[in-house]
Amino acid sequence: MQTPFLVVDRGILAANIERAQRWADDRGLRLRPHVKTHKCVEIGRMQTDAGASGITVATIGEAEVFADAGFDDLFVAYPLWPSDEARARVAAVSARARVLIGIDSAEAAAGWAGTGSHSTDLLALKRSQNAVECDQFPETLSGPGGAGREVRALIEVDSGHHRSGVPAELAGELAVAAEACGLGVEGVFTFPGHSYAPGEGRAKAAGDEASALVSAADSLREAGVQPWVISGGSTPSLAATGSGLKESRPGVYVFNDAQQWELGSCGPDDIALTCHATVVSHAGGRLVLDSGSKVLGADRPPWASGFGRLLDHPDARIVILSEHHAVAELAGPLPPLGSTVRVVPNHACNAVNLVDALEIVEAGRRVATWAVAARGRNC
Amino acid sequence: MQTPFLVVDRGILAANIERAQRWADDRGLRLRPHVKTHKCVEIGRMQTDAGASGITVATIGEAEVFADAGFDDLFVAYPLWPSDEARARVAAVSARARVLIGIDSAEAAAGWAGTGSHSTDLLALKRSQNAVECDQFPETLSGPGGAGREVRALIEVDSGHHRSGVPAELAGELAVAAEACGLGVEGVFTFPGHSYAPGEGRAKAAGDEASALVSAADSLREAGVQPWVISGGSTPSLAATGSGLKESRPGVYVFNDAQQWELGSCGPDDIALTCHATVVSHAGGRLVLDSGSKVLGADRPPWASGFGRLLDHPDARIVILSEHHAVAELAGPLPPLGSTVRVVPNHACNAVNLVDALEIVEAGRRVATWAVAARGRNC
Repeated sequence: MQTPFLVVDRGILAANIERAQRWADDRGLRLRPHVKTHKCVEIGRMQTDAGASGITVATIGEAEVFADAGFDDLFVAYPLWPSDEARARVAAVSARARVLIGIDSAEAAAGWAGTGSHSTDLLALKRSQNAVECDQFPETLSGPGGAGREVRALIEVDSGHHRSGVPAELAGELAVAAEACGLGVEGVFTFPGHSYAPGEGRAKAAGDEASALVSAADSLREAGVQPWVISGGSTPSLAATGSGLKESRPGVYVFNDAQQWELGSCGPDDIALTCHATVVSHAGGRLVLDSGSKVLGADRPPWASGFGRLLDHPDARIVILSEHHAVAELAGPLPPLGSTVRVVPNHACNAVNLVDALEIVEAGRRVATWAVAARGRNC
Repeated sequence: MQTPFLVVDRGILAANIERAQRWADDRGLRLRPHVKTHKCVEIGRMQTDAGASGITVATIGEAEVFADAGFDDLFVAYPLWPSDEARARVAAVSARARVLIGIDSAEAAAGWAGTGSHSTDLLALKRSQNAVECDQFPETLSGPGGAGREVRALIEVDSGHHRSGVPAELAGELAVAAEACGLGVEGVFTFPGHSYAPGEGRAKAAGDEASALVSAADSLREAGVQPWVISGGSTPSLAATGSGLKESRPGVYVFNDAQQWELGSCGPDDIALTCHATVVSHAGGRLVLDSGSKVLGADRPPWASGFGRLLDHPDARIVILSEHHAVAELAGPLPPLGSTVRVVPNHACNAVNLVDALEIVEAGRRVATWAVAARGRNC
């Protein structure tokens, strides 16, 4: 098989899934893993089989793929905009899965109100006919939650990443506005993305996350809305998760990557995903590999030591990355021309989204090929 | 249609193609555009219809897609490694197209020697039978170049980007080694990738490119090998191309992008590719768009002012980019929630490789959908 291609070590993958689930179980936390990392039905099943309480997705397209595969409890952890097409698609998914969405504005809340498998239009039509026909959809009229029921929302809170979300103290006000429009609110969520920082960044972000979520939940209670769900989580902050959360939504922990390795959230033995690459040149006394940004992704945060690392050469760093070249510097003799090396992408989520399939190995032997079923499902 | 999706303005695309071709024609340069930027058969046809002398590809997979679509003169501008599978695939492509490949080592040259549509193994088999049968393949036995002929090579030269390629003065030595193994050499090529630098970077790289190629061509001549092809080119260095080149291989010029805009290789009116994105939030008084790194790509060179720009708000900068969020700062009133804005990716090539299709507009009206036929063809 020609390089470059992405390989998943099933043993390490399974261990990563089990460890995170056990960690959550021990703390009485629900784990709702973010499947945007792998976009792969087989891996989602491993997560729910291990005990995950539903899954998290980033887009309606991902929700469709996983609902089609039988996943029945989905949270779209994103401030989706309620266009007509988005509403119709989410309504269709909600016919076969419980669907929660994120909101961070009253405008979005108003647009999502009344969206469900009964479909606003369909229900209006039935109502205009007669009550008997309307009885065909009894489950759509009683909430909250569950397949065939109305879509409900979590209020997104900014816990310090400063991307989307409202300040914690305004969560109650938005929840009241949403419920007044007819959109049920089940709780609050945040993404402490500032956990992607070296040094004390992970612990600080975990502290910010817990305090923002606790404040936001209080804000809901004061406004008379019960926060059934209090949801946070990111892979770097996971180990330092504070009290007050009821749910965590890590994604990258299934594979880990060079970012997690450098942040200290994992060791090299916990890395389940690598890109197999061929040494195509020794130009300039460096290693030139055929794994460029079109298979690794171009992610490089300012604190990263390079564009990716080599699993079997921990001292090596990818110093130049273009579309089909990764140039690595390392001490000692270079692996020979034509040999294969295992590259660890900086960011697993973007690498996986560049390929149609993952090659699965067990004890070094290829045992399966799994489709990246939701690859490219950006909307 | 739900955002995010990539849109190409056909009028601007056609103007970019025409302008570059005219520029090359005026200088007596052959233009062999790099199709890795668009991976799209329709755009490749526009380029050859305008007068391009063949096309450039980065991978065997791209060569296969374009050969299948009838393109019959392909240069794989990459130091391909000659695995058995690579040799067989390149041989198959060479049955229907002239194929040139890049080499930068004697080891790779030895591996590629004798590869062609006659296939080493097939020819050996035929020869071992009888001369009459061998006559069925007369066209495979006379070179150089052309479909149904042996694959030939260009020597890759490092002109200052320090990625792959040999020093110019060693090009002749490698050409002799290649020909001694039986791999025909047609000339030299380089990629002056250090043209991706602000200030004087573009002009300096163009100067380095010309001097390296002229030296390398001299080195071939001194070694008794005729440099029929002397090939360089990158979009930023194009306008400053020096003398001595016979061919240029720009890629990004068809679309342009935020990098080219910032380097000064294009103006905003020359940008043919944008990502249509929805304003999903005004969190923190900033614009939060649904176009993240899974549709724009994560490219951000140190000199870039952000992770991408907004075509209709030249002062705006994308200051945070995650997989499904682009957070932009801009002066003045924010475009309203739910409205659509046009985002210019930093790097067109990586953005296009993230989608299955491009929406084509003409005077603002959608006129076609073109497949990104070679998306994901990394090997």
